[in-house]
Amino acid sequence: MAKDKQFVTEITPQQEDFSRWYIDVIKKAELMDYSPVRGCIVFRPDGYELWENIQRDLDRRFKETGHRNAYFPLLIPESFFQKEKEHVEGFNPELPWVTEAAGDILEERLAIRPTSETMFGHMYSKWIQSYRDLPLLINQWANVIRWEKRTLPFLRTSEFLWQEGHTAHETEEEARAETMQMLDIYTDFCETMLAMPVIKGQKTPSERFAGAVDTYSIEAMMKDGRALQAGTSHYLGTKFATAFDIKYLDRENNLQYAHTTSWGVTTRLIGAVIMVHGDDRGLVLPPKIAPLQVVMIPIGPAKTREQVIGRVDELYKELKQAGIKVKVDDRADVSPGWKFNEYEMRGIPIRLELGPRDMENGQVVLVSRVTGEKRMVQQDNLLAEIDQLLNEIHDEMLERAKQFIVDNSNVVDTLDEMKQLFEQKRGFVEAGWCGSAACEAQVKEETGATSRNIPFEPSVHKETCLVCDEAAKHTVVFARAY
Amino acid sequence: MAKDKQFVTEITPQQEDFSRWYIDVIKKAELMDYSPVRGCIVFRPDGYELWENIQRDLDRRFKETGHRNAYFPLLIPESFFQKEKEHVEGFNPELPWVTEAAGDILEERLAIRPTSETMFGHMYSKWIQSYRDLPLLINQWANVIRWEKRTLPFLRTSEFLWQEGHTAHETEEEARAETMQMLDIYTDFCETMLAMPVIKGQKTPSERFAGAVDTYSIEAMMKDGRALQAGTSHYLGTKFATAFDIKYLDRENNLQYAHTTSWGVTTRLIGAVIMVHGDDRGLVLPPKIAPLQVVMIPIGPAKTREQVIGRVDELYKELKQAGIKVKVDDRADVSPGWKFNEYEMRGIPIRLELGPRDMENGQVVLVSRVTGEKRMVQQDNLLAEIDQLLNEIHDEMLERAKQFIVDNSNVVDTLDEMKQLFEQKRGFVEAGWCGSAACEAQVKEETGATSRNIPFEPSVHKETCLVCDEAAKHTVVFARAY
Repeated sequence: MAKDKQFVTEITPQQEDFSRWYIDVIKKAELMDYSPVRGCIVFRPDGYELWENIQRDLDRRFKETGHRNAYFPLLIPESFFQKEKEHVEGFNPELPWVTEAAGDILEERLAIRPTSETMFGHMYSKWIQSYRDLPLLINQWANVIRWEKRTLPFLRTSEFLWQEGHTAHETEEEARAETMQMLDIYTDFCETMLAMPVIKGQKTPSERFAGAVDTYSIEAMMKDGRALQAGTSHYLGTKFATAFDIKYLDRENNLQYAHTTSWGVTTRLIGAVIMVHGDDRGLVLPPKIAPLQVVMIPIGPAKTREQVIGRVDELYKELKQAGIKVKVDDRADVSPGWKFNEYEMRGIPIRLELGPRDMENGQVVLVSRVTGEKRMVQQDNLLAEIDQLLNEIHDEMLERAKQFIVDNSNVVDTLDEMKQLFEQKRGFVEAGWCGSAACEAQVKEETGATSRNIPFEPSVHKETCLVCDEAAKHTVVFARAY
Repeated sequence: MAKDKQFVTEITPQQEDFSRWYIDVIKKAELMDYSPVRGCIVFRPDGYELWENIQRDLDRRFKETGHRNAYFPLLIPESFFQKEKEHVEGFNPELPWVTEAAGDILEERLAIRPTSETMFGHMYSKWIQSYRDLPLLINQWANVIRWEKRTLPFLRTSEFLWQEGHTAHETEEEARAETMQMLDIYTDFCETMLAMPVIKGQKTPSERFAGAVDTYSIEAMMKDGRALQAGTSHYLGTKFATAFDIKYLDRENNLQYAHTTSWGVTTRLIGAVIMVHGDDRGLVLPPKIAPLQVVMIPIGPAKTREQVIGRVDELYKELKQAGIKVKVDDRADVSPGWKFNEYEMRGIPIRLELGPRDMENGQVVLVSRVTGEKRMVQQDNLLAEIDQLLNEIHDEMLERAKQFIVDNSNVVDTLDEMKQLFEQKRGFVEAGWCGSAACEAQVKEETGATSRNIPFEPSVHKETCLVCDEAAKHTVVFARAY
């Protein structure tokens, strides 16, 4: 038992130091490791498989809505960045440059892509001639680099993995509909796959993507009350089309600029899932993306061991066959208690225990990682019980995360109120905003909170700006953010 | 009809200029486009989907044999390359270097990975402590860059996509078994998914991977008789383990170096598939990786058009439902003949035609892309007929490709014979080899052919070296290669 206790205490409690809790958990659960390259991590198999499962489901959604995947070059000529003024200002400070290759100094420096609007723009101008070529709906799964000063595994790393959709359309209306469709797909994905509720809304001008006309985001709340931008979708207007000469002959034979969009989510979703659901015992993984959904642990004395393991193996085959991600831990040199702690720390949704008495009764014990509830179920109905419990776990996780947002959201009238609030606790704060960048900047300076977005469905409609007390244009969600 | 003919003649015949045929086909079928970065291409959706289908099947095979995916950093510190002497010599001439990032000159240059043995080696030395940590079986799907002087789309591009497996084992025996297992998986994959027969064998020392103890390869034959290395599997011995200090405590508590392997296939498989199966009308895609397996074309006069399209749509839904990759081309402004040519050029395995008479008879016409055979089949048995024909097409393609290798393989006794042979035609040539690098180099110098591999199953066992006439150690396959 001493060993069991020691095991648990290796994880810093969330209340004591949330950042340390996070690092403890992802290291201990072997989701990642630090690499020898500054700001870059190694995605270990259990971490990478979370991404594979995220990828598979999103990819299906993209394809069902008519998008196809392609692959564009990693390296982007320096001159491309110069073509869109805001874009170059936004990304130049973060670019790594290839200046030499195969022993030669390059004539033009090549940036490692921080995002591929410019490369897509260049190719789209070649591929798009007529309205018949539109809409053009392409997505790319790729690595990108942004040389970040302060990094945090998964959440902000110099190299990360993502998908970037880039589409071109005949009209503003169509392009805006695409922008919203993708934001909706992200929202639904977060809820139904990650059990993670998000706030949908529009970014203020100062928080827009470099080069976008409008940026929309989904914002999640981590367990320390900080916000995390979980996905973005941009309406780019004709800005990139103008910069890269993406023109088409319309149905009346007039030459027009295309309207373009881009949208993406990244491996930071892995970090989000951990910070939304984890607890002091470790990870709590959403059943639909967990690399392992059920761990089976045979228990009881040595003399019945062989018989128990035999039955566990039979049940294992049945679950495996049905597509449940399951494994048996029948190590003899590790105590059941130690195993319980280990798989709780790793966030496995269901623990299945089977001992000699369960054998006699034709039962097994299922233990939910999220509630700790123990459920005695019949072996001959095991698959249905597991399916049921996995769904319940998902629903419970989503419900708790929603409640957490409710419990940690507030509305304020004035900047002073907001300052007082942030002195006591973190969370989302709704307030009225006049629309001026100066007032927004003042909030940031005095509270450390940034405008997350202008939610589509605010809980209230505020009449006056929290800073200047002028008439409010919008109700904005402010929060300290990752 | 004039337009139809023009369409076909846009593709250079293979006999006239195979390289131009290849470029014509991949551009016209929109598999790729040139990018503004030297030696890098854009994988357009129809090209990229070939890779996605290759990926999906290989990934399943890797996982079924106990491997898991992970992701390691793109950038590798210069010092890492210095640790394995042969490795640095092999790759240094091809490396692109990041020297600046975010406005600062880097203290140590970072190479964009040409392969990740060094990065895996560094991390494995941290993760492997005891025999309990072995075997460690990790694969990575990633982009890599090798700054090539002469490039050819898919076959040799500066940036390409690949998978690289890296495993560590307790013993040489286990590591060698892994090396062979992966070579066998590649071989079976090429035959059963790509309809592409390959010659399995061991590379000669001069053709080994930089840093390997033994390299094994599979070699395919393109339709111009040139060889293409389609996959490699390396036994690395303890060389990288020594260079990166990958040590483990064995079962007797002694510290040992691990035995490691690596193995990979790349997007050059896309090029291989095109060059093995294509003909003067364009692509011929293997049914199991084709983005589109069946194209449905309604035919007949305008007055029955609506009715015919109605029936085509019903059949479309049935096939789609059953998982067939199918589309309907019901464009009214393009003639059926033009469509036939277009989808032949794009290599779609089956064309389905339905006209008013077929409506009356409850039939459709299926046309095989590979044989041109027309088959009248009953609509109410369509799915089974399609399945059957797809399988037949696969088998026919594999059979033809096997016969092509037989027809273009020869055995010679002397270098003179080989020279004469290569003056007339290309292909594989088996010959005896004494094992000296000098004799091998002389073959290359005088014929332009390189040793492809020492096949596991040579057609003959030659007694003497084709160059020096000394006793032959091996029978080697020589060929001009991509």
